[in-house]
Amino acid sequence: MSFQVRFFPKNVDITLDAPATVLEAAFTAGVEINSACGGKGDCGRCKVLVEGKAESHHSDKISKEDWNRGWRLACTTRLTGDTAVFVPEESRVGDLQIYESFTAGEVSEMTPLTTANYVEVPPPTLDDNRGDVERVCASLGLDDGALHIPLDMLRDLPKIVRDSGWRITAMVDRTGRPTLLDINNWDTSGRNFGIALDIGTTTVVLALVDLRTGKVVAQASDYNKQIMCGEDVLARIAFAEDGGLERLRQLILESIDYLISQVVILSEVCRPDGRKVCREEVTAMAIAGNTTMVHLLMGLHPKQIRYDPYVSVTNVPPVYKAKELDIKIHPEAPIYFVPGRASYVGGDIVADVLSSGMHLSDKVSLLIDVGTNGEVVLGNRDWMVSCSCSAGPAFEGGEVASGMRAMTGAIEKISIDRDLNVTYRTIRDDRPRGICGSGLIDAVSEMFARGIIDKKGKIQIANGDRVRDTGDGKEFVIAFSKETKEASVSLAMKAKSGIWGAKTVQGKEITITDGDILNIIRTKAALYAACDVLLESMEMRFDDVEKVYIAGGFGNYIDIEKAINIGLLPDIPRDRFTFLGNAALGGAFMTLLSSEKRAEALAVYEKMTYLELTTSNAFFDRFTSSLFLPHTDIERFPSVKSRAP
Amino acid sequence: MSFQVRFFPKNVDITLDAPATVLEAAFTAGVEINSACGGKGDCGRCKVLVEGKAESHHSDKISKEDWNRGWRLACTTRLTGDTAVFVPEESRVGDLQIYESFTAGEVSEMTPLTTANYVEVPPPTLDDNRGDVERVCASLGLDDGALHIPLDMLRDLPKIVRDSGWRITAMVDRTGRPTLLDINNWDTSGRNFGIALDIGTTTVVLALVDLRTGKVVAQASDYNKQIMCGEDVLARIAFAEDGGLERLRQLILESIDYLISQVVILSEVCRPDGRKVCREEVTAMAIAGNTTMVHLLMGLHPKQIRYDPYVSVTNVPPVYKAKELDIKIHPEAPIYFVPGRASYVGGDIVADVLSSGMHLSDKVSLLIDVGTNGEVVLGNRDWMVSCSCSAGPAFEGGEVASGMRAMTGAIEKISIDRDLNVTYRTIRDDRPRGICGSGLIDAVSEMFARGIIDKKGKIQIANGDRVRDTGDGKEFVIAFSKETKEASVSLAMKAKSGIWGAKTVQGKEITITDGDILNIIRTKAALYAACDVLLESMEMRFDDVEKVYIAGGFGNYIDIEKAINIGLLPDIPRDRFTFLGNAALGGAFMTLLSSEKRAEALAVYEKMTYLELTTSNAFFDRFTSSLFLPHTDIERFPSVKSRAP
Repeated sequence: MSFQVRFFPKNVDITLDAPATVLEAAFTAGVEINSACGGKGDCGRCKVLVEGKAESHHSDKISKEDWNRGWRLACTTRLTGDTAVFVPEESRVGDLQIYESFTAGEVSEMTPLTTANYVEVPPPTLDDNRGDVERVCASLGLDDGALHIPLDMLRDLPKIVRDSGWRITAMVDRTGRPTLLDINNWDTSGRNFGIALDIGTTTVVLALVDLRTGKVVAQASDYNKQIMCGEDVLARIAFAEDGGLERLRQLILESIDYLISQVVILSEVCRPDGRKVCREEVTAMAIAGNTTMVHLLMGLHPKQIRYDPYVSVTNVPPVYKAKELDIKIHPEAPIYFVPGRASYVGGDIVADVLSSGMHLSDKVSLLIDVGTNGEVVLGNRDWMVSCSCSAGPAFEGGEVASGMRAMTGAIEKISIDRDLNVTYRTIRDDRPRGICGSGLIDAVSEMFARGIIDKKGKIQIANGDRVRDTGDGKEFVIAFSKETKEASVSLAMKAKSGIWGAKTVQGKEITITDGDILNIIRTKAALYAACDVLLESMEMRFDDVEKVYIAGGFGNYIDIEKAINIGLLPDIPRDRFTFLGNAALGGAFMTLLSSEKRAEALAVYEKMTYLELTTSNAFFDRFTSSLFLPHTDIERFPSVKSRAP
Repeated sequence: MSFQVRFFPKNVDITLDAPATVLEAAFTAGVEINSACGGKGDCGRCKVLVEGKAESHHSDKISKEDWNRGWRLACTTRLTGDTAVFVPEESRVGDLQIYESFTAGEVSEMTPLTTANYVEVPPPTLDDNRGDVERVCASLGLDDGALHIPLDMLRDLPKIVRDSGWRITAMVDRTGRPTLLDINNWDTSGRNFGIALDIGTTTVVLALVDLRTGKVVAQASDYNKQIMCGEDVLARIAFAEDGGLERLRQLILESIDYLISQVVILSEVCRPDGRKVCREEVTAMAIAGNTTMVHLLMGLHPKQIRYDPYVSVTNVPPVYKAKELDIKIHPEAPIYFVPGRASYVGGDIVADVLSSGMHLSDKVSLLIDVGTNGEVVLGNRDWMVSCSCSAGPAFEGGEVASGMRAMTGAIEKISIDRDLNVTYRTIRDDRPRGICGSGLIDAVSEMFARGIIDKKGKIQIANGDRVRDTGDGKEFVIAFSKETKEASVSLAMKAKSGIWGAKTVQGKEITITDGDILNIIRTKAALYAACDVLLESMEMRFDDVEKVYIAGGFGNYIDIEKAINIGLLPDIPRDRFTFLGNAALGGAFMTLLSSEKRAEALAVYEKMTYLELTTSNAFFDRFTSSLFLPHTDIERFPSVKSRAP
């Protein structure tokens, strides 16, 4: 008997020959799980999500609701067959999250999704005996009948206005016809918060925003817990088709809920007045996500997105209330989705455009968003074309053996000298644990520059210290095992004698294989070819592009020169490049705060044309031509050619 | 031991000395209750609402829900103390309802609250891969994002459009931003119905309307079941203040529900295709009601309406869904309320104005609505003033011993000749059971003309056949007991021997007392004084009034000449008077069908000024001057003066 266990989000496999607890298996696999009590089931810190063959006794550390969703204690759950395990942020050790920066364009006027309006309403008299609601409307500057009031609130309103001495704070939903979302019998106008949310296939990033000032109070990010059901959107859709839609909806809700709990805790530290923001004070949310992620959150079946002709249920979702979507902020809070253009160019890309400002400029701009998928937009204020390509997750650490996301211990910069000595820099200067996107670009660029690999990405030099055969090609060592971080073992585990003590795992070598390089080249080729096709569709060339915006989590750290060296970015003047960071979050932030930006988002949606590449021969041609370093046509990269060895 | 039982809606009291069943008590009191099985508890036809001291065993003829609301079988419920009993229409014998006519002005364009739109949606292709919702929007002629779709419906939409081969019927709520209220996968556009509803303090009238053609399918009316909790709005408010708000809400819901069940049954007969309308096909409702009735239906506390400065929670209620208000038609159906001007000039009066068309005319018009209260509006398309007066329920049969509503057996016309012989006509030529409003006006007019009463309304002639002392003044006999209808006794009851058989009640005399006449004079004086004050406020006289509209259930049958004789209506050319019938229902009907009329209703609300008469010395003066027949100032009634004996 032998079975497999896969740990997420690390995506580590382990084969077991006999039943073992999740904690034991994780330990063996080098996956770090918190276990403060040493595996006795006392501390409840080792909560994991389990999908597959596992036995567990109920624990009072886990609520009934969580239990039904598949949450278990790692230490008391026994694996007996093939299983997937998700280790959440809070149960991990050492995985410090990086708060991703984001760029938001200018918001000229504060017109947030919701407003908190303190008003002193004139009490009724015989000469002025308008109804209570009409008095409140007038104080808010609204015509009679212009304010919608939920029935329960209408029933309470007469008491509230009188209890308060006619001094109230009206929380007003401004997403459509003004709607009262709450009413308080004192001045709470200083406490109105919103959330900007970027739902990526891999990562979810959330910013808590003061809707009065437009300032970010706190930010948090985590893996999308759905990745245990499939790494890319196609896998998620397949999982939904297998009856997993509600499961996926619950997982993204859990991801969001965890992040909300994080920013709420952080708000105590970050707010100048030290007063924690409570969930009920969060009255609005603006979400940018790719079309599939938005479908899954809304509980819409994404099936049609997967099959020709690739249509979504909607690209312009209506505004719903938080309680309708089961998001735990103020129940009446409006949840706004940035509209998407198509099934594979979603609200996240429209949000990118808003952040860049390219839709307001007369300059021709190119926007590239590299996430689990790659999307490209070309255009200016008059026209826009867009497309999507299956770039693959190489730059997010996927499909590369030593790849990882840009977290503590990730190698983010690499240099290789003429003697093939490797120097690198890690995030937070921790011991290296893997290579993130910018490190991978550096690695390929440097290996190409030093002649370690050829134009096709194949390792050319003889075996030696850093080069050896893997049986399936060669690999190049970036960091030896002595340099790398040891798998952390909790003290309690170390203190245990017996077999587990003997299994202490050494740090692993960090290498790049022929196969890894091929994956990186495929990814860069797809992105470059997509840009190429868009330009051709407009009868333009890269030289005509006046601005290049680079969006996506990895974008802040890449070395443009090296990205050009490998043919990921075009060889045009370097001052045309701008990094936007997490521009999707930036765009969501802008729509949270500005009705003008929400109108612009709809205008971008209406203006943008979508090119379907999956059925495009032109794309396949350009992709094939780009499967070289930097490109089949070296004349496209004059600066690379001039530096060639 | 002795206790009182009051029967509604007849408003008959009986004192009992020993416990008795409701059926026995009703029989003794002359209140007709259906009892097909003879009081064995078998037929379930004697359902009544009981409030007070009564004991009853559960019956399988009454649902658990109804039981909890106080419904009992009259035959098996034993009264042991003071109790109120409501006998509903369906448990009454012989109380045939009159379908009240209504006048509706012209609706130039059919823009009902909801529309049923059959559309053939182009299926998606690779060249046109808009989302499902965007395709449906375009087919409906709406911009992307312009249609709100409830989340559940959005989740079902992809399957429905595909199952139907992209041919669907979209039911769209047009009250605000277009909202999908249902979607069918075949052509149901021919089946879309709405309800116009007039909620009066005493009566509820309902019309089922085909929203495609604007034709009335069926109509029904009944007492407002709330009258067992108080006859006028002040009594209802007091009941609500005593913790009875939810009870009142349930009672009006039951009244509405019963009428809906009636029109649904009638629809089978009335529809040309013979297909019964089902409740789910009723997708909209427009309601005209006085402010208190609207509050009670919405569950809003009407308390402030009763106390200085007499303000309502709102005069412009938002549109809610049927499910929110617990009205059992299509759960997503919008419920629209015609806006009211003030606490005592409600949506019913604004609906009257719509029906009359006075708000579109340059002629100065006067509108008088006589119901349980009296309301008056003066104005034209440029300006409007309104007021309300506690006219009292005399013209609806209240506060007059032999008064009754305009139903089968009501005396509606009376003549008295010089020898004091009385001739009369009853509704449906049945045996006389009482006198309705038009009959009372005739009676007073004729008694005044024949010198039976003086200017103050006091009976002047000596006792005789038709005139006698009551101990508290005199009374005049309109119909002797031999002419009047016997209390109907069910055959089964008659067959029973013993005490009940001995109690068979003879027909009662129908008389008019000094006190009755005083009540009628008070009512007419209040109405006339209210008109007077409105005219004075605009520095006008009755002669300046170019049109007089008379609204309210009683209005269709009154004799104008006799109404002028008693000083109820002003002595102006007769061709200026127009009867509108139930104009409140007519106005509700118009707003159900036309967005233009809904806009006009809001414009009337905005244009109209309200005069508070309770604090007006001018009103009290004019009222006092009007407490004569026809008026203190006889010069105001030249034609009456010229005919004076």
